[in-house]
Amino acid sequence: MKKVLIIQGPNLNMVGIREPGIYGSETIDTINAQAMAHAERLGLACEVFHSNSEGAIVDKIQEAFTAYDGIVINAGAYTHYSIAIRDAIAAIKKPVIEVHLSNVHARDEFRHKSVIAPVCVGGVFGFGKIGYKLALDALAELL
Amino acid sequence: MKKVLIIQGPNLNMVGIREPGIYGSETIDTINAQAMAHAERLGLACEVFHSNSEGAIVDKIQEAFTAYDGIVINAGAYTHYSIAIRDAIAAIKKPVIEVHLSNVHARDEFRHKSVIAPVCVGGVFGFGKIGYKLALDALAELL
Amino acid sequence: MKKVLIIQGPNLNMVGIREPGIYGSETIDTINAQAMAHAERLGLACEVFHSNSEGAIVDKIQEAFTAYDGIVINAGAYTHYSIAIRDAIAAIKKPVIEVHLSNVHARDEFRHKSVIAPVCVGGVFGFGKIGYKLALDALAELL
Amino acid sequence: MKKVLIIQGPNLNMVGIREPGIYGSETIDTINAQAMAHAERLGLACEVFHSNSEGAIVDKIQEAFTAYDGIVINAGAYTHYSIAIRDAIAAIKKPVIEVHLSNVHARDEFRHKSVIAPVCVGGVFGFGKIGYKLALDALAELL
Amino acid sequence: MKKVLIIQGPNLNMVGIREPGIYGSETIDTINAQAMAHAERLGLACEVFHSNSEGAIVDKIQEAFTAYDGIVINAGAYTHYSIAIRDAIAAIKKPVIEVHLSNVHARDEFRHKSVIAPVCVGGVFGFGKIGYKLALDALAELL
Amino acid sequence: MKKVLIIQGPNLNMVGIREPGIYGSETIDTINAQAMAHAERLGLACEVFHSNSEGAIVDKIQEAFTAYDGIVINAGAYTHYSIAIRDAIAAIKKPVIEVHLSNVHARDEFRHKSVIAPVCVGGVFGFGKIGYKLALDALAELL
Amino acid sequence: MKKVLIIQGPNLNMVGIREPGIYGSETIDTINAQAMAHAERLGLACEVFHSNSEGAIVDKIQEAFTAYDGIVINAGAYTHYSIAIRDAIAAIKKPVIEVHLSNVHARDEFRHKSVIAPVCVGGVFGFGKIGYKLALDALAELL
Amino acid sequence: MKKVLIIQGPNLNMVGIREPGIYGSETIDTINAQAMAHAERLGLACEVFHSNSEGAIVDKIQEAFTAYDGIVINAGAYTHYSIAIRDAIAAIKKPVIEVHLSNVHARDEFRHKSVIAPVCVGGVFGFGKIGYKLALDALAELL
Amino acid sequence: MKKVLIIQGPNLNMVGIREPGIYGSETIDTINAQAMAHAERLGLACEVFHSNSEGAIVDKIQEAFTAYDGIVINAGAYTHYSIAIRDAIAAIKKPVIEVHLSNVHARDEFRHKSVIAPVCVGGVFGFGKIGYKLALDALAELL
Amino acid sequence: MKKVLIIQGPNLNMVGIREPGIYGSETIDTINAQAMAHAERLGLACEVFHSNSEGAIVDKIQEAFTAYDGIVINAGAYTHYSIAIRDAIAAIKKPVIEVHLSNVHARDEFRHKSVIAPVCVGGVFGFGKIGYKLALDALAELL
Amino acid sequence: MKKVLIIQGPNLNMVGIREPGIYGSETIDTINAQAMAHAERLGLACEVFHSNSEGAIVDKIQEAFTAYDGIVINAGAYTHYSIAIRDAIAAIKKPVIEVHLSNVHARDEFRHKSVIAPVCVGGVFGFGKIGYKLALDALAELL
Amino acid sequence: MKKVLIIQGPNLNMVGIREPGIYGSETIDTINAQAMAHAERLGLACEVFHSNSEGAIVDKIQEAFTAYDGIVINAGAYTHYSIAIRDAIAAIKKPVIEVHLSNVHARDEFRHKSVIAPVCVGGVFGFGKIGYKLALDALAELL
Repeated sequence: MKKVLIIQGPNLNMVGIREPGIYGSETIDTINAQAMAHAERLGLACEVFHSNSEGAIVDKIQEAFTAYDGIVINAGAYTHYSIAIRDAIAAIKKPVIEVHLSNVHARDEFRHKSVIAPVCVGGVFGFGKIGYKLALDALAELL
Repeated sequence: MKKVLIIQGPNLNMVGIREPGIYGSETIDTINAQAMAHAERLGLACEVFHSNSEGAIVDKIQEAFTAYDGIVINAGAYTHYSIAIRDAIAAIKKPVIEVHLSNVHARDEFRHKSVIAPVCVGGVFGFGKIGYKLALDALAELL
Repeated sequence: MKKVLIIQGPNLNMVGIREPGIYGSETIDTINAQAMAHAERLGLACEVFHSNSEGAIVDKIQEAFTAYDGIVINAGAYTHYSIAIRDAIAAIKKPVIEVHLSNVHARDEFRHKSVIAPVCVGGVFGFGKIGYKLALDALAELL
Repeated sequence: MKKVLIIQGPNLNMVGIREPGIYGSETIDTINAQAMAHAERLGLACEVFHSNSEGAIVDKIQEAFTAYDGIVINAGAYTHYSIAIRDAIAAIKKPVIEVHLSNVHARDEFRHKSVIAPVCVGGVFGFGKIGYKLALDALAELL
Repeated sequence: MKKVLIIQGPNLNMVGIREPGIYGSETIDTINAQAMAHAERLGLACEVFHSNSEGAIVDKIQEAFTAYDGIVINAGAYTHYSIAIRDAIAAIKKPVIEVHLSNVHARDEFRHKSVIAPVCVGGVFGFGKIGYKLALDALAELL
Repeated sequence: MKKVLIIQGPNLNMVGIREPGIYGSETIDTINAQAMAHAERLGLACEVFHSNSEGAIVDKIQEAFTAYDGIVINAGAYTHYSIAIRDAIAAIKKPVIEVHLSNVHARDEFRHKSVIAPVCVGGVFGFGKIGYKLALDALAELL
Repeated sequence: MKKVLIIQGPNLNMVGIREPGIYGSETIDTINAQAMAHAERLGLACEVFHSNSEGAIVDKIQEAFTAYDGIVINAGAYTHYSIAIRDAIAAIKKPVIEVHLSNVHARDEFRHKSVIAPVCVGGVFGFGKIGYKLALDALAELL
Repeated sequence: MKKVLIIQGPNLNMVGIREPGIYGSETIDTINAQAMAHAERLGLACEVFHSNSEGAIVDKIQEAFTAYDGIVINAGAYTHYSIAIRDAIAAIKKPVIEVHLSNVHARDEFRHKSVIAPVCVGGVFGFGKIGYKLALDALAELL
Repeated sequence: MKKVLIIQGPNLNMVGIREPGIYGSETIDTINAQAMAHAERLGLACEVFHSNSEGAIVDKIQEAFTAYDGIVINAGAYTHYSIAIRDAIAAIKKPVIEVHLSNVHARDEFRHKSVIAPVCVGGVFGFGKIGYKLALDALAELL
Repeated sequence: MKKVLIIQGPNLNMVGIREPGIYGSETIDTINAQAMAHAERLGLACEVFHSNSEGAIVDKIQEAFTAYDGIVINAGAYTHYSIAIRDAIAAIKKPVIEVHLSNVHARDEFRHKSVIAPVCVGGVFGFGKIGYKLALDALAELL
Repeated sequence: MKKVLIIQGPNLNMVGIREPGIYGSETIDTINAQAMAHAERLGLACEVFHSNSEGAIVDKIQEAFTAYDGIVINAGAYTHYSIAIRDAIAAIKKPVIEVHLSNVHARDEFRHKSVIAPVCVGGVFGFGKIGYKLALDALAELL
Repeated sequence: MKKVLIIQGPNLNMVGIREPGIYGSETIDTINAQAMAHAERLGLACEVFHSNSEGAIVDKIQEAFTAYDGIVINAGAYTHYSIAIRDAIAAIKKPVIEVHLSNVHARDEFRHKSVIAPVCVGGVFGFGKIGYKLALDALAELL
């Protein structure tokens, strides 16, 4: 059975609280539970990890080198400047898929650029919690 | 029954021929057929439209104002400069989803920018033909 | 009797439908009819041409080399990037006047730049349908 | 009877003298007289104000808060950098229309940008002295 | 009694040691003590938090959602690039005030830009330790 | 007794009238009166000067070389481009403090840059009329 | 016998009419006839295609995948922004040579950049109608 | 006898006081007196005008259209942004020479650009008060 | 005996695993051991510290204020954006030397810029593990 | 008999050795010999000059003022920054044609810009040694 | 007796020949003779050096360290990019004055920037051959 | 026995004289002697070459194709713009190491960019004369 990891980056624990006009009003716990249930339906073992710390996220991605077969990551704000996370993704040589709840291209200019996208397989943005399901579907196809 | 339109932009009729290292070797006909079959499974009436012409794509998007409930669009090269297509999407007030076969963010700098993304609901990139299925899944949820 | 041409560019056929907060709620047909009536009052023979296609607009502008004495053009989105339309205007050596319904300078940054303005005689922006009348007044003075 | 103000910015008192190839050879007094006669025909009370001083122009615009119903402004060189004039226009909440004698987009790069355009209703450029008449026509419609 | 939090970002624990020409020679402990005494005089319960870690600062700001009524933050170097801290401030919907000991606008170009300023209520810079007092005064007024 | 000068730049006489959503609804006279009362409490002789003219503001700042011990300046729009005001501040060698009523960093991009900040001691922004009090407090400490 | 295609892009049908100072006074028909005669001398079967439409040019280039052995293209204004034409050239995997009548590097800044050059074999500019002959010579060598 | 005008721009009245490390310690009165004596030796009638106001400088330059044969101008800070002064210089069609006391190219980046230089005959920078003499010498040769 | 610290930044624990084409195939443990042996030969007490966390690296650099005489740092991805690490280096007033295994100038554009280089004594790049030896040699000379 | 000069710029003497993947494997001597033979067939007297020195190339171009009727130049790396060579070409008022062996537009970004192109008649790039023949053909037509 | 050196950079030997509209029609020999005569009148021993080679100009400037008391340099095209010449000027610690025959600020954008100006004492531009006299006057004052 | 070449670029012959605050006070002869002694200890035959001329440096680098096994180069000012030197290094296919005496990243912005770094093996900066020793050590390891 393939093992996949969902990484929730900075401030995603505030989803449902933080700017519901942008992110919707369901909490991250609900979203994670739905994503994990979806992974199970796809025959994937799935864990969720959240951290506000860039370093902790890098640590976790590195674990995937031996412990996971693929990653779905919503790197939150780090998407736009964390070359450290980019390098970690490039290092593990496992498929990684980028997810964003909101349509980042319809928000601030600085959210249009993703420094991690070039080292991911692909990405999904703008569909709210559905994004995690689509990313898991894609990951299941790739594995 | 909801009606959806898949728009294939410039040079997508060359897929399977053009740079298979980037786009894979299945032809656009196969990809379209699989996407339409998937739409049917989702209970959606689905049509496919291809054109190399920006004006013809604008014309077709405008049809969606009365004839379709949503659009999945792979605008190809026009993604990066066609404000005319952007304005057409904004005008019809129907959900539009952007798809790219390849990971555009891992290619030429000028392919990193989408002028249509800000007026789409969301997007999917980098998963090859699977991208159309994911986009249809998302559209089905939205409708 | 002088002959003038009004060119309506991409998505202007959606006016009255598309974003009425920006463009007002009268349809393009009403606007065109009022503009033609105004031209008649000025003693000008006036035709209206609409296309969503850059190439078709270039073809039409070229006709003016022999068939019209001047042009009023609302090039819509093509205003901002169509060097082909710019070159056509420069080629015909007839007075061309640029019109925009909305105040393009109060909208997206990319709408602030007109690539056709430098080869037009002048322009009018921000007055809605009145803009066509003002442009025809100016053209009448120039002819 | 509605009261309107025409503001002539820096160096416009040199028109007819300064670079006639660009601005024509009629003096500013002739142009102002023709504009005022046109305003009268439109049933508008019209005054003209000229100053080379940014501060004096800001002072005058502020007067419009209580004393005028609308403004036609040719801010000359200040068009391109006077945020003070922009803020004054935004403060008075009366319709303001931007005019330029020449086609600023066909001249130096730095003349392509107007910092006041985004807070004006609209604008007219490139028609010489006719521009004031067109702007007054538009203002009459708006009032 | 209102509760406020003072956050001291990276390297602020080196103040008094690090570049005294820029930051003065009092240590951070003295500055914090004076700020807390000032808060007490204003009738505010005040805590101070220091960390060199972006993630820990994000964690602490999120606590303010339930535990504090306002924040005074000197985000140090993170001011200039931490979109994660920006997003945390935007998420908690409590007043946050930005402080800098030095006049950041008189130093390196890259210190002129604050990515957190747009989501703060306001800010104070250039007054050394007095800045915290002024920020607390402002926060007391706002609460 | 120390003498301080408060300079109110262009359009600040419109405060309370101009865009109350941004600047609040108290008039500049009320704000000035409160600032002067506050200065008196601090034991400072305080005068207020308003002008819409860049040159007049430069003249007034130069007076401070002999007539004042410090300045609180809200340079309004001139903040963003008046190198003449910057040079005047640098020339007088007296402490000058920059104030803005609104959070300039949360508004138009061109309002993020202050050309006078590098030659001021420090600044305060975003607290409305309180900003003048905080600036006077800081100035009192510096004198 | 090798088959080659000459593509004449937007406004090239106006050559001899449009700006003779830049393009010379021979018409496009004369130029095409001379080029075809030259191709014949080189032992090449040669066709000429003109369109003002980007989409039609993309369609024609795609034909070359099966119908031609090489292309000489003067993409006119599209040279500077048509990524769609670029992608078509890249897709057909046949040698394509870029021609410009005028020295584009001695004209407007925006004419200095060719988005199609990187996917062409090479190019020729500035020699007027001779350019087509040189391009055919080069193509004959390459085939 | 030819009449020339020396214009001293903003803050030049502070020379000798303001930043003597950059501008030297002689006052502007001394410098002006020496320049006028030098003009006399050259057989030129010479007047000096100082203002901190952009508008007043524009007014004065316009006077030269009828009253002076040439101008030596040190536009101070306005050098870097006053398009109004630039336009005034261009309008009068008399030789104008730009002077700077300091080497502006060895100071802040924003002082490297002169918006008036392109419409002056030439310029002199970096020689302190000697600069005015050299400029008068040049002007004498030109007249 | 002088004490020196080697800091290995984010993802350097993946060396030997991550992209061996760029970084070589020896693991970080081997590299560290060789560097420590080399330090010993130079008569330096040497410790190695690795972290993926920016904050932890800042903490460690601050320790050097009292605990080490110099630092050799390979800041990995943080090299390119961590102003917090830059400020920490500037604060401790001990010699710090920057090392990179690969030639960062031959890789992605964003790797060409080091925000820490200006506050280091100097640097070494492109020599793989030898870089640490050279940096220790330089540090030994400096101490 | 017309005399023409072929100038081979820096590192072109390494052709056949340097990066044969880009430049082909024939040496510069072979290429020069073939070019000279071709010139002879065209009835042109032809000399070849090679130098790695910008100054020597400027000297040689200046000779053409009296000694040659036209120049074919491959300025190598100097193409991208030598304004001195540009000025020399502009000074001699003889036709000069730019040649590049490789398709410079398909290589490093900095090779896309030619500072000499605007003062040449035209150019040829991407055809290897054939480029010199085409350039000589064009030159023969021009002379 | 003080010794000064006049350096004439690339293509200045073509003056009188090259673009007389810009540089005048007197030859460099005449200009040099007049400058030397002027130096003699000022009591300066003066030599003139011309080279088209950047390296030779650097060599000559270095000689000034021991052999000359000051330099007047017209670096021609090298003005705009030769950091080597800039470094040579900075190294010799003798006064160097920059001269340009034409008004470089009224020509191509790339001629507006001087990389040597920041290390010169000052400069003179736009006065043709008179410029050398003015520069010698200034140098005489400085020595 | 391996042969290596040390190249000293423009103005390095002035070291010890030129700006000793930046480069130290030892002359280039001393530095070269120490470097050569060090090379001898490493078992390398070493020559030193100095020139202020870009072309001469290119000539010398090309010699290394047959005459040397590696190069240590301090290209001085040419580091920042000499694409000719870059191309020569790329052409010889021998290891080349870049050295700078000073920390170029702590100096002018334009010294932060090296156009030769991408084609060198690696580099060393900021350690004064020690840099040559470290570069020779690295070269010895590579050979």
